[in-house]
Amino acid sequence: MSTAYRIALDAMSGDHGLSAVVPAALAALKDFDDVHLILVGDERQIRDAMTQHGAGKPERLQVRHASEVVAMDELPAAALKKKKDSSMRVAINLVQAGEADAVVSAGNTGALMATARFVLRTLPGIDRPAICTAIPSMQGHTHMLDLGANVDSAAEHLYQFALMGSELVRSVDNKPAPRVALLNIGEEAIKGNEQVKAANRLLQDSPLNYTGYVEGDGIYLGSADVIVCDGFVGNVALKTSEGLAKMVNNRLKAGFTRNALTRLAGLVSLPVLSGFRKQVDPRRYNGASLLGLRGIAIKSHGGADSLAFANAIGIARTEIIQKVPQRISDRVTELLNKR
Amino acid sequence: MSTAYRIALDAMSGDHGLSAVVPAALAALKDFDDVHLILVGDERQIRDAMTQHGAGKPERLQVRHASEVVAMDELPAAALKKKKDSSMRVAINLVQAGEADAVVSAGNTGALMATARFVLRTLPGIDRPAICTAIPSMQGHTHMLDLGANVDSAAEHLYQFALMGSELVRSVDNKPAPRVALLNIGEEAIKGNEQVKAANRLLQDSPLNYTGYVEGDGIYLGSADVIVCDGFVGNVALKTSEGLAKMVNNRLKAGFTRNALTRLAGLVSLPVLSGFRKQVDPRRYNGASLLGLRGIAIKSHGGADSLAFANAIGIARTEIIQKVPQRISDRVTELLNKR
Repeated sequence: MSTAYRIALDAMSGDHGLSAVVPAALAALKDFDDVHLILVGDERQIRDAMTQHGAGKPERLQVRHASEVVAMDELPAAALKKKKDSSMRVAINLVQAGEADAVVSAGNTGALMATARFVLRTLPGIDRPAICTAIPSMQGHTHMLDLGANVDSAAEHLYQFALMGSELVRSVDNKPAPRVALLNIGEEAIKGNEQVKAANRLLQDSPLNYTGYVEGDGIYLGSADVIVCDGFVGNVALKTSEGLAKMVNNRLKAGFTRNALTRLAGLVSLPVLSGFRKQVDPRRYNGASLLGLRGIAIKSHGGADSLAFANAIGIARTEIIQKVPQRISDRVTELLNKR
Repeated sequence: MSTAYRIALDAMSGDHGLSAVVPAALAALKDFDDVHLILVGDERQIRDAMTQHGAGKPERLQVRHASEVVAMDELPAAALKKKKDSSMRVAINLVQAGEADAVVSAGNTGALMATARFVLRTLPGIDRPAICTAIPSMQGHTHMLDLGANVDSAAEHLYQFALMGSELVRSVDNKPAPRVALLNIGEEAIKGNEQVKAANRLLQDSPLNYTGYVEGDGIYLGSADVIVCDGFVGNVALKTSEGLAKMVNNRLKAGFTRNALTRLAGLVSLPVLSGFRKQVDPRRYNGASLLGLRGIAIKSHGGADSLAFANAIGIARTEIIQKVPQRISDRVTELLNKR
């Protein structure tokens, strides 16, 4: 039997739940013949959704019943304590038990991180897991972390984020020495807060390909392969970008629908405009890695549709193939021994 | 004699120096017949630039000689100590001496803030001045502060920023009760760092029209009139937006210039595209207020061209008319007495 990459999907979470996850699962089975999926959630609802999508009984798809669902606004601690049979928890348990190689969930970030951390545990040498995602840039894309798992990160944490991000990019982008930069508010050495300055010193002494500070615009200019920051800062940068992208789309749309003449211009420009939208389509970048855990966990955007969720499944598959947690663990051990 | 609003311009700073400031000054004199400008810098170079722009000897324009220039990468402390005859310093001195009602400089932010703070002093009750600017949003615009003057802001500082931002918007946008929000990484009360949570409590107990937390996308969705954050976070949000805007423009341009057909589409779409560009043109929002000082100081973007610099002059004029520092001072005194 050939290799199968087994991915557990939290089928009930996210704004769209089953109506995004089921078609995404079916698409992924089509795209990847080496993927085996386990849909976790209310079995009857899953079966119904599959029938609706005319799925029949796909060979590489299993259903695992879970009776509860973690709400999108549920407190992480509450989800962890009280929802032991949630689709999210059961899907993560499958990874811990070795029945799945990765989990993908569009559930609430706090609950997902807390549960994954509790069930899977962090890798030795890693204090805090971090959330990392690829963001489109003028040079391709930039990986950025942390995006909200941690606030008030100390220098040592930022250093660990850099290490994990670098190893992720080495694995999934096949870049032998990813350029790692620290997000700061100025490129001069005097700027920044104490944590960033101390992390800068740690990184300068590290074997990583550390290129120094970048400012916020460096994310999109593609000034680095990995950009490291505290989770508060990273989350604000990401959400700010989402807001600006929405405004840009909104204004372009308004401009092209103002009158008959602009509508015509819009029609003529359709190939350009849809090409542009595709290039910056956040769905094609959906899927953030929870790095630093003893297992692969991918967070899909809460609002992800089936195309976006399918992308997150693809990321899970790549991380399985690349054995990302093992590689991070090896690298941490190697660097800790060098210190 | 009618009222004259006297604005000192640091004529030598910024990436473009005189070649941006002189035409901006001439444009402002045309736009506003109540504005009197004092160009501060190397007198001969200023006169030469004026001749180049065919300016003659405008009635409401004075030149004040200053022999030095603060470099764009000069350390703030060095500029403050060693460049006592810089165009920046002399322009600020004019405000302190009562010879000008406001100063505008495109010089380096750190040096400008340090010098303005040293020369003008902070208002009573204000611990730290903050940088505030308007950002275009889907609802018009949002004022945001701090944008980089402070890192590691404590709750009390964030509270003071909120108060200053609210009073600025009351003055310049004529909104009686601006909606004030705190930038956070989630709208749920449990998220955020300690400073933000503590500032949230202070603001809930304040007479400001405080509407709670917003995430980064709220800046562009127009969820609030004033968005308050630490300077590290605000600067990253602003620079990230600059980077994304650059990428969007770049990709649209590339899309419309790909071949003859797309060029034609671009030509047909020109009115829409230039309307779009105009709406989000950062030059039309250029001019950040250094709030919390005993005087009006406006920071123009280092890369500002003459159109952008002229906009900053307009902002200085509005703040003079509205007596912004006095109004902030009155409001601080009022609120401190209430506590």
